[in-house]
Amino acid sequence: MPTKMKAVVKPSPAPGLELATVDVPTLRPDEVLVKVKAASICGSDVHIWNWDAWARSRVTPPVTVGHEFCGEVVEVGAQVSGVKAGDFVSAESHVYCGYCYQCRTELRHICGNLKILGVDMNGGFAEFVAVPARCVWKNDPAMPIEVASVLEPLGNAVFATLCEPISGQSAAVFGCGPQGLFAIGVAKAAGASPVIGVETVEYRREMALKMGADAVFDPSAPDLVQKVVNRTRESNGVDVVLEMSGHPVAIKQAFQTLRKGGRFTAFGIPSDPITLDLANDVIFKGARVIGINGRQVFQTWYQMAGLIASGALDVRPVITHKFPLTEFAAGFDAMRSRDKKCGKVVLLP
Amino acid sequence: MPTKMKAVVKPSPAPGLELATVDVPTLRPDEVLVKVKAASICGSDVHIWNWDAWARSRVTPPVTVGHEFCGEVVEVGAQVSGVKAGDFVSAESHVYCGYCYQCRTELRHICGNLKILGVDMNGGFAEFVAVPARCVWKNDPAMPIEVASVLEPLGNAVFATLCEPISGQSAAVFGCGPQGLFAIGVAKAAGASPVIGVETVEYRREMALKMGADAVFDPSAPDLVQKVVNRTRESNGVDVVLEMSGHPVAIKQAFQTLRKGGRFTAFGIPSDPITLDLANDVIFKGARVIGINGRQVFQTWYQMAGLIASGALDVRPVITHKFPLTEFAAGFDAMRSRDKKCGKVVLLP
Amino acid sequence: MPTKMKAVVKPSPAPGLELATVDVPTLRPDEVLVKVKAASICGSDVHIWNWDAWARSRVTPPVTVGHEFCGEVVEVGAQVSGVKAGDFVSAESHVYCGYCYQCRTELRHICGNLKILGVDMNGGFAEFVAVPARCVWKNDPAMPIEVASVLEPLGNAVFATLCEPISGQSAAVFGCGPQGLFAIGVAKAAGASPVIGVETVEYRREMALKMGADAVFDPSAPDLVQKVVNRTRESNGVDVVLEMSGHPVAIKQAFQTLRKGGRFTAFGIPSDPITLDLANDVIFKGARVIGINGRQVFQTWYQMAGLIASGALDVRPVITHKFPLTEFAAGFDAMRSRDKKCGKVVLLP
Amino acid sequence: MPTKMKAVVKPSPAPGLELATVDVPTLRPDEVLVKVKAASICGSDVHIWNWDAWARSRVTPPVTVGHEFCGEVVEVGAQVSGVKAGDFVSAESHVYCGYCYQCRTELRHICGNLKILGVDMNGGFAEFVAVPARCVWKNDPAMPIEVASVLEPLGNAVFATLCEPISGQSAAVFGCGPQGLFAIGVAKAAGASPVIGVETVEYRREMALKMGADAVFDPSAPDLVQKVVNRTRESNGVDVVLEMSGHPVAIKQAFQTLRKGGRFTAFGIPSDPITLDLANDVIFKGARVIGINGRQVFQTWYQMAGLIASGALDVRPVITHKFPLTEFAAGFDAMRSRDKKCGKVVLLP
Repeated sequence: MPTKMKAVVKPSPAPGLELATVDVPTLRPDEVLVKVKAASICGSDVHIWNWDAWARSRVTPPVTVGHEFCGEVVEVGAQVSGVKAGDFVSAESHVYCGYCYQCRTELRHICGNLKILGVDMNGGFAEFVAVPARCVWKNDPAMPIEVASVLEPLGNAVFATLCEPISGQSAAVFGCGPQGLFAIGVAKAAGASPVIGVETVEYRREMALKMGADAVFDPSAPDLVQKVVNRTRESNGVDVVLEMSGHPVAIKQAFQTLRKGGRFTAFGIPSDPITLDLANDVIFKGARVIGINGRQVFQTWYQMAGLIASGALDVRPVITHKFPLTEFAAGFDAMRSRDKKCGKVVLLP
Repeated sequence: MPTKMKAVVKPSPAPGLELATVDVPTLRPDEVLVKVKAASICGSDVHIWNWDAWARSRVTPPVTVGHEFCGEVVEVGAQVSGVKAGDFVSAESHVYCGYCYQCRTELRHICGNLKILGVDMNGGFAEFVAVPARCVWKNDPAMPIEVASVLEPLGNAVFATLCEPISGQSAAVFGCGPQGLFAIGVAKAAGASPVIGVETVEYRREMALKMGADAVFDPSAPDLVQKVVNRTRESNGVDVVLEMSGHPVAIKQAFQTLRKGGRFTAFGIPSDPITLDLANDVIFKGARVIGINGRQVFQTWYQMAGLIASGALDVRPVITHKFPLTEFAAGFDAMRSRDKKCGKVVLLP
Repeated sequence: MPTKMKAVVKPSPAPGLELATVDVPTLRPDEVLVKVKAASICGSDVHIWNWDAWARSRVTPPVTVGHEFCGEVVEVGAQVSGVKAGDFVSAESHVYCGYCYQCRTELRHICGNLKILGVDMNGGFAEFVAVPARCVWKNDPAMPIEVASVLEPLGNAVFATLCEPISGQSAAVFGCGPQGLFAIGVAKAAGASPVIGVETVEYRREMALKMGADAVFDPSAPDLVQKVVNRTRESNGVDVVLEMSGHPVAIKQAFQTLRKGGRFTAFGIPSDPITLDLANDVIFKGARVIGINGRQVFQTWYQMAGLIASGALDVRPVITHKFPLTEFAAGFDAMRSRDKKCGKVVLLP
Repeated sequence: MPTKMKAVVKPSPAPGLELATVDVPTLRPDEVLVKVKAASICGSDVHIWNWDAWARSRVTPPVTVGHEFCGEVVEVGAQVSGVKAGDFVSAESHVYCGYCYQCRTELRHICGNLKILGVDMNGGFAEFVAVPARCVWKNDPAMPIEVASVLEPLGNAVFATLCEPISGQSAAVFGCGPQGLFAIGVAKAAGASPVIGVETVEYRREMALKMGADAVFDPSAPDLVQKVVNRTRESNGVDVVLEMSGHPVAIKQAFQTLRKGGRFTAFGIPSDPITLDLANDVIFKGARVIGINGRQVFQTWYQMAGLIASGALDVRPVITHKFPLTEFAAGFDAMRSRDKKCGKVVLLP
C-alpha cells in the first residue's frame, strides 16, 4: 500500500482547486479504505471551486473534495462487519451520527449532526478515500464503474421521484440537468406516464428525450403551462411535479401545472427565498410539497439497485464526459460552461 | 309546510347582509330539505358581509348565505336513498359533482366543479335549506345542536390535524382563532404531546389553555421560536406545525420551529403571496408542506364523530356567542370586533 | 335501435349457459346503454357455467352473464353527466351503492350493497348492456377492443400489484393464469426487479416469460422456496408476494419466500379455509397480508390507463383466443380445458 | 463498583430459574452498564421458566433472564456517544446488528441477526446489566421506576395499536392480559372510539374498564360477534382489531367482527398453526393483516414517551404486583396462576 496519493484539494479559502500529493488516509476502526475507480462532479463541487457564499460558510480548507465515487475496498477497520477487502462499493456521502433524533427515527439522510464526504471531511477525488463502514454500499461487481460513480446523485433523483408512488401517474420534470435527466429515467422506469421535461437548453431537451421523456418543452416559448397541462389526462394538470431546477420562474410555472391534490417535489435549490402563492398553489389546491435532500439510507439504494437490475433504468446517456483525474480542471470547465452542453462528468484516477 | 321563510341574504353586490323573507326551497330529486336548528358564522361569511375582493369575485347576489349548520330533515327528493325525514343532520358544504377526476379518485373535497353552500348556492342562515343528499351527514340524535352546527368547520381542523398521524408527537398550533382552538382540541384528543398554542390575543390564549394546550405563547414577546423549540423533546423542533392563522409572520416563525423531517400543515389563508425560504425551510429540512382545504368526504366526518363520541373532544368552550337568527348582525359584530374576543358564533332560527 | 338482441344467459338453476334472444335493456335515468364490441370470460363465469356451490348461492336465473367488456355508448339516461353517445367505454363491474360506509370512505370496490354486472344484474355477453353511468370508464378511442375488454380483470392485477409501492423491489407471482400474467406485466412496468413467476403448467410459464418475468419456476420441482429466495438481493427473500393462484400449497410456499417485513398480497381465492402458521409467517416476520378484491374506483383505472399509455404494459400476449359471441361455448371449453393452455378468451358480438 | 451481583438465572436445560451470585458484566466498548432499578416479567420469561418447546429451541443456559427493565447508567464503554453515567434509562431488548437488510431499511426490530436481552444474552433480572448503547432509551428522570420498567412491553402495544392511524376509529381488543390492557390504554389515548375489550376472565375485564375500555365482553357468553359489531357505527364492524391473545377461537371471532377494509393486527402468538378463511375474512373483505413483533426502534419509543407525557396514557393500573428481586419466584407464581388474576409483575433489585 502506498503512503502518498494524488488528490484534488481545496488548499486554501479562495477560488479554484488543485491537484496535490497527500497522505493516503489512515483508517479509524469503523472505516474502510476505498481505492477509487471513478468519481463524478456534482454541482456543489463547482460551488466549492467557485468559492461562493455557501462554500465559504461551509468548507474549511484544506480538504480533498468529491462525494460521488466508487471503488474497491482495500482495507477494513478493526470493528467493521459486513464489508471486506475486494468489495466493489459506492458511498453514501451523508455521514450520519447514528444517535440523534433523526438517526433514531429513520431519517439518517437528514441527521442532526450530518457530515458530508468531500465537504466536511476528505472525499473521493483521490486515489484512496476513507469511508465509514456504515456508509458503504456494495455493488454488483458487473456494474460499469461510471454507473457506480453516479449512484449517489442518482439516489437523489430516485428518492425525489419515488418518495410517493408514481406508477401510472403523469409527471413533469422542471430542469433537465443531470438530476432532472436522472429523474426522467427513474419516472419512466417506474411506469409514470406521460413524463414531460421542461428545459431551456436545447442540448438538454434532446438528452431528456434520450432518457425517455414523452414530451419536452422549452419554457421560454409561449404557453408552457397550458402545453404541459394539455398532455395530462382530461387536461387536469400533472399528478407529480419534480422540480429539479431551483429556478424561481420554473417553480412558479411548476405549481401552475400541478393538478388539485397533486405532489410537488422540491429538490432544486433556489439561491434566494422565493415568492409563493400559498393560498392558490398549495392550500386551495390541496397540494403536498415534499422537500427532498439526500437519499434514504439505504432504502433508496436498494430501490435504485433494483431499477438498474431490471434493465428499465440506464443512466449512461447522462454521462457525457470522462477525464483522467489529473485533468479534473477540464471536467470542471465542462460543468461550468455557459452553454450547459454537458450531463455528468466522470473522473478516472 | 310553509311556503315562505326568513333568511339572511346578500341582496346585491355591496357590503352588508339583510334579513329577508324568501321562498322555502323547492327540492330537486336528489336533494333533502333541512329545517335549520342552529347555524354558525364562518370567517368567509364575514368576507361576504364585507364584500371584499374575494367575495366580489366569487359571489353572485342574491344568495342566502351560511354553510355551517345542522337541522332536521323534513322532506326528501324522489331519488334519495339513505336519508329520511326526521334524521338529525349536518351538511358537508362542499357540493361535489361526482364525475370529475378528483371526485373519481377520492378527492371530492377539492372537486373540479365544486360549489359551496351559502356561497355558490343558497345556504343555511335560514329556516330551511335544500341540501344534496350526497352531502348529508347523519348525527347522533343526542348531539347538542350547537355542536352539530360547527361540525363543518371542526372537520377542517380534524382533517388538518389528522391528515398524517399525530399521536405521541409534538404539535404547534399557530393562530388560536376558532380553527386553531379546534385543532388544539383534536390534537389533544388524538394524543399529541406537547400541544403548543401561539397567539397574539390574550383572550384566545386563555381559550387555548381551556381546549387543552400544554403551553401557549405570545408571538409578540421575544424568542418565540426558541420557546417553542425548547418545549420539544431534545429541543429538536416540533414534529407537526398546524398553521391556522395565514399570517406571513406566523408562517415564517412556524417553519423555524419545525424539526427536520417534520410536517407543516398549511390551512390559514394568507391574503397575499408569501416569501418562503424554500431551500432552508423545506428542502434541506426534508419537510412536507400539506395544503388543507375542506374535509375528506366522509372519512373526516367519521373520524370526527368518533373523537366526539370518545369524550376526548369537547368543542363547546370554543362556542362563545349565541344569537337568534334575526339578530345575526350582532353575531357578525362579534366576529368583526377588533379585540377578537370571540370564538364561534351560533345563530338559532 | 333494435328491440331484441342476442345474449348469453343462464336460463335456469342448472349447469350450462345458452344463447338467447332477449329484450334490449331499457335504461334507468342514471344508466347508459353500451353496444358491446368485445367481452372476455372470467373464471367466475366458468363457475356460473358449472353451477357450483358459489354460483348456486349467488346467482338467480335468468340473467345475462359477463362482466368484462367494452363498447360504444349509444344512449344515455336523463340524469347522466360526463358520458355521451359515441364514447368508447369499459365498465367497472362493481356497481356500488354510493351511500354505505364503504362508499363514503374510499372503499367503493367493497361497497356494503355491492352488485356485480353479469352476476347480480344483466351483464355484457350480449349485443347491448345497460351500465350505471357512475361505473363507466372512458377509453382512448385508439385502444384495441380486445385490450379494452380485459381492463376490468387487468384492474384487479394493477390494484393487487400497486396497492403498495413496488418500484425497484423484488416480486414473486404465484400462479401464472391470466391474473398472474397480468400482474407480471404490471410489476415489470412499475420497475419491480426481479419479477419471478411460479407456475406448474409449462405453457403458462412460457407466457410468463413473454410478459417479462425475469425467472419462472415450476413448483413441482424440488427446492422451489430456495430457488426463489436465491434470486433476491442478499438471498433475503422477496419483498412482495403476489398470490394469484388461491392454491393452499402455493400460499404456504409463498409465505416461506417472503422476507421479514414484506408484503403478501392475497388475491387468488382458496376454495376452502387454509392452514396458516400465523406466528412464523406473519407475526415474527412482521409481514403484511393485504386482501385484494376488485379495483379502486377509479384510482386503479387511471393508473392502468397510464401504464398502458406509457407503452410499458402490453397485455395482448395474455389474450390467446377470440371467438364470435355466438361461439361462446368454444371459449368456455378453452377456459375449462384440463391442460390450461389458455390465457384470456375474448368474445366478439 | 462491586464485582459480584445477584441475578435470576436459568442454570441448566431444565424447568425453573434460580437466584445466583454472578460476575458483574464487563463492558464492551459499545456497551453501557445499567444498575437495574426495576424489572418486569414477560410471558416469554414464564416460557423459559417452564422450559417448553420454544425455550428449549432458543435458550442456551446458563443465562441471566429478563428483558424488561430500567435503571441508571453507571458506566459507559469507550466508543459510546449520546449516553452518560447518571442517565435514567430503559432498554430496547431487540439487539439489532445494524448492517443486515432489515437494519438498513427501517426494520431494526426484525433484524436478520436479532439477539434478545435475557434470551440470547444476559438480561436484566439482576443488579447490573450490560446494554449496547444503540439500544438505550433515556427516560424523563421523573418517570416512576415501575412505569419505566414496563416500557419495553408497552412499546409492543404502542406499535401494534398505532402501526396505522386509529384516532376516531373503533377498535376491538381481543385478550385483556397485560398487552391487551396496554393496547386499550394506548387506543384510548390516541382517540379511538369505541374501544371494546374481549376477555374471558372477569378480573381482567374489570381491569380493561379501568384502562378506559368503553365496553368489555365475555366471549364465552352468546353472540359475542354481534355484540361487538352492534357497538360500531352503523353496525358496520370494527375498524381495527387488536388481536393480543393468540387464541385460535379469538382470532376467528376477531376476523368476524372486522369491517370490510379494516385492519387486523396480529400480535398474540398462537402455539400452533391456525385455520383461516382467507377468502371471506381477508380477500373479499379487502382486509389488511399486520404482523407485529417488537417495537420500531426508536419511533415507537418517541411516540410512547409522548403519550405518557400527555397524561392521556397511565399504565399503572396494569401493574398489579411488586416483589423484591430475591422473591422472583412469587412473581412467577402470580404470572403462572390459573385464575390469571394478575397484570404486570414488577421485581425490585
